[in-house]
Amino acid sequence: MSDTPRIGEADIIERYFAPLAADTPGAFNLSDDAGLLTPPDGMDVVMTADVIVSGVHFLAESDARDVAFKALAVNVSDLCAKGAKPAVYLLSLALPGAPDAAWLEDARAGLSEAQEAFGCTLLGGDTVRTPGSLALSITAAGFVPEGRMVHRSGARAGDKVYVTGTIGDAVLGLKLCRSSNAAPGNLSEDDHAFLRNRFQRPRPHLNAIEPVRNHANAAMDVSDGLAGDFAKLCTASEVGGVIEAHKVPFSDAATRWLEREPDLLNALITGGDDYEILQTVSESASAAFEADCERAGVAVSQIGCIVPAAEGVDFRDAAGQSLALGTKSYAHF
Amino acid sequence: MSDTPRIGEADIIERYFAPLAADTPGAFNLSDDAGLLTPPDGMDVVMTADVIVSGVHFLAESDARDVAFKALAVNVSDLCAKGAKPAVYLLSLALPGAPDAAWLEDARAGLSEAQEAFGCTLLGGDTVRTPGSLALSITAAGFVPEGRMVHRSGARAGDKVYVTGTIGDAVLGLKLCRSSNAAPGNLSEDDHAFLRNRFQRPRPHLNAIEPVRNHANAAMDVSDGLAGDFAKLCTASEVGGVIEAHKVPFSDAATRWLEREPDLLNALITGGDDYEILQTVSESASAAFEADCERAGVAVSQIGCIVPAAEGVDFRDAAGQSLALGTKSYAHF
Repeated sequence: MSDTPRIGEADIIERYFAPLAADTPGAFNLSDDAGLLTPPDGMDVVMTADVIVSGVHFLAESDARDVAFKALAVNVSDLCAKGAKPAVYLLSLALPGAPDAAWLEDARAGLSEAQEAFGCTLLGGDTVRTPGSLALSITAAGFVPEGRMVHRSGARAGDKVYVTGTIGDAVLGLKLCRSSNAAPGNLSEDDHAFLRNRFQRPRPHLNAIEPVRNHANAAMDVSDGLAGDFAKLCTASEVGGVIEAHKVPFSDAATRWLEREPDLLNALITGGDDYEILQTVSESASAAFEADCERAGVAVSQIGCIVPAAEGVDFRDAAGQSLALGTKSYAHF
Repeated sequence: MSDTPRIGEADIIERYFAPLAADTPGAFNLSDDAGLLTPPDGMDVVMTADVIVSGVHFLAESDARDVAFKALAVNVSDLCAKGAKPAVYLLSLALPGAPDAAWLEDARAGLSEAQEAFGCTLLGGDTVRTPGSLALSITAAGFVPEGRMVHRSGARAGDKVYVTGTIGDAVLGLKLCRSSNAAPGNLSEDDHAFLRNRFQRPRPHLNAIEPVRNHANAAMDVSDGLAGDFAKLCTASEVGGVIEAHKVPFSDAATRWLEREPDLLNALITGGDDYEILQTVSESASAAFEADCERAGVAVSQIGCIVPAAEGVDFRDAAGQSLALGTKSYAHF
C-alpha cells in the first residue's frame, strides 16, 4: 500500500480521461472549465442523461470495463432511438474513497471501446469523491437534421409496431451474473456467455438511426422493459396498442431457456436493460422501413399494431387472449 | 407514515420536474427520452458538468432549496466564465431510499429560483435510487457566438489580472454553517447571514458574460480557491503570474473577521466555493473592460499581472514578499 502513489483529480483527468478526449475538437484536452460543441449547419442537438449506480444498475463486483461501456451505451441507445447520431458525452464520476489505478484504467479501456463502437468522444465532465456508491453520470449529445428528431409521441392508429434485435436477454444475463447455476441444463456455455454479454455490454443499434429517422412515426429505446415502455409510448402518443407476445423476438439462448421455464415469458417482456429500439411505422412506410433495416443489417420484427386510444394497451398470446402482466416495467421507487 | 402515498419516478417527473421544463421548447414536457437544443444561427454550444454530493459539497442537513440552487449555480458559473449565456441544463438525481415529497418540493423551489436568476431552464435528466449519498449531477449548456468562447489558456505576459466580487466569503460561511459560534465577536448577525448565504447560494455573475467575452484574454471561475485556480490558469496559458494579496477583494464581513484572525488570510485565498470570475485582460483593453463592468454593475478588482513563464507563479504581500501558501486549492483525493 505504502508504495502506491496517491492519485489526484488532475492525474485522473490527465492519465485516464484526456486520452478519451483527444479526438474531440472542443474538449481542449480537458484543460478548460467547459467544452465546446459546434453543431454542423442545419443540425439540431439531441441531449440525454442517464446515471448508473453500483448496486442498482450493475453488480458491485462488475468488471469496470463493462460498467463504463454500459454507462455510455445506455445513453447512446437513447440518441439512436431519436434518430440522432452520437457526437460527444460528458462524464461525471463519483468515486467512493481513494481512486484505484487499476479500476480507472479498466474504466478508461471500457469507455474507449464504447467510443469506438458508437462513434462519439469525451467532451468534459467532473470527478468527485463520494461517501456513498460508485456512480457514473453521463450526458450524451448527438446531431439530427433540423426538425427530424423522432418522438415518443408520434404513433398513429394503424401504425405497425416494430422492435429491433431480441428482447429479454439481459434479464436472463443478470440471472447468470448473479448465479452461474441459474440456467437450465439445455443451455450451452456459449448461450451463457451470450446472455451475460447482453446484460453487461448492450449494443445500441447505430445502424438503425437512419431507418428510424426516415420512416418511424414514433420511437423510444426499450430500457425499462418492453411492456412498460410500449405503454409509455402509447400514453405519450395518446393511442392504444396491441403487442402479440408470440411475435416478440427472442434469441436462441432465451428460447431454449423459455422451453424449460415458460413462466419466464412475463419476466422477459417486463424486465429491463434490452436497449433495443421500439418504433411505430405507418402501413405505407413499412416496406421501405423493413428494406432499409435489412440493408443496414438491423434485424427488426413486427410485434403488433397501434389502435385508437379507446381500445387501450394490450398484450395478447397466440390465441388472442390478454396476458396478465402484473407490474409492467422496472421501477426505482 | 402509512398514509404517505408512495412516490414513483413518473410522479417525480410530472409533479416536480416537468414544471421546471415548461419553458424549454425542446424538453417536450419531459415525456420523451431526450431533449432537443436548437442553437441560434452563428452560435456555438458550451457544455459543462458538475456533480455535488451530500457530505462532500454540502452538509447533509442542508436545506434542499439551497442545495438545488447551488447545484445549478456552480454549473452556470462555469458558463459565465467562458463568456457563454446559459440556456438549458439536464439534472441526474440520485436519491437515497424512498423519495421524500417535502425534499423534492424544496429542491424544485430552489431550482426554480436558480433558473429565474440565471435565465436557463430544464431540458431533461434522470432520477435513480442510490444505496449511497444524495447526489445532484448537472450538465449545463449555454450559447456563445461562434469562436468566441473564452479559454483558460489565453493569458499573455503583460495582462492585468482581475477578479469579480469578493474572495473567501464561502470559506467563512461554511465555518458558520458548521458552528454559529465560529466567528469573532465583532461580526454582526447580518455579517453571519451574508457569509452563510455566500456559501449556500453562490451568485454567478451573469452581467459579466459580455465584458469577459469582449475583453478577456483568459478566464475561469474561481471554485477551488483563488490561489490554486490562478496557478491552473497560468499553467494552461504557459505563463507566470503575480497576485498581490493585499489587493484581493474581501467583503466587509470577511475584513472584520480577518482583523481578529489575520492568520485566516491563507484559508481565504486557498479555500473554495467563491464562484467569482478570474480573468486576464491586456493593458490596452483594461480601461474598456473596467468601464463595461461598471456599466454592467459588476465589481472587479485588479489583483495582479501576468509575467513570462520563467518567472513562475507568486503570491506577494504588500511589502513584496512571497507568501508561503502551502496547499493551494481544494482537492477531492
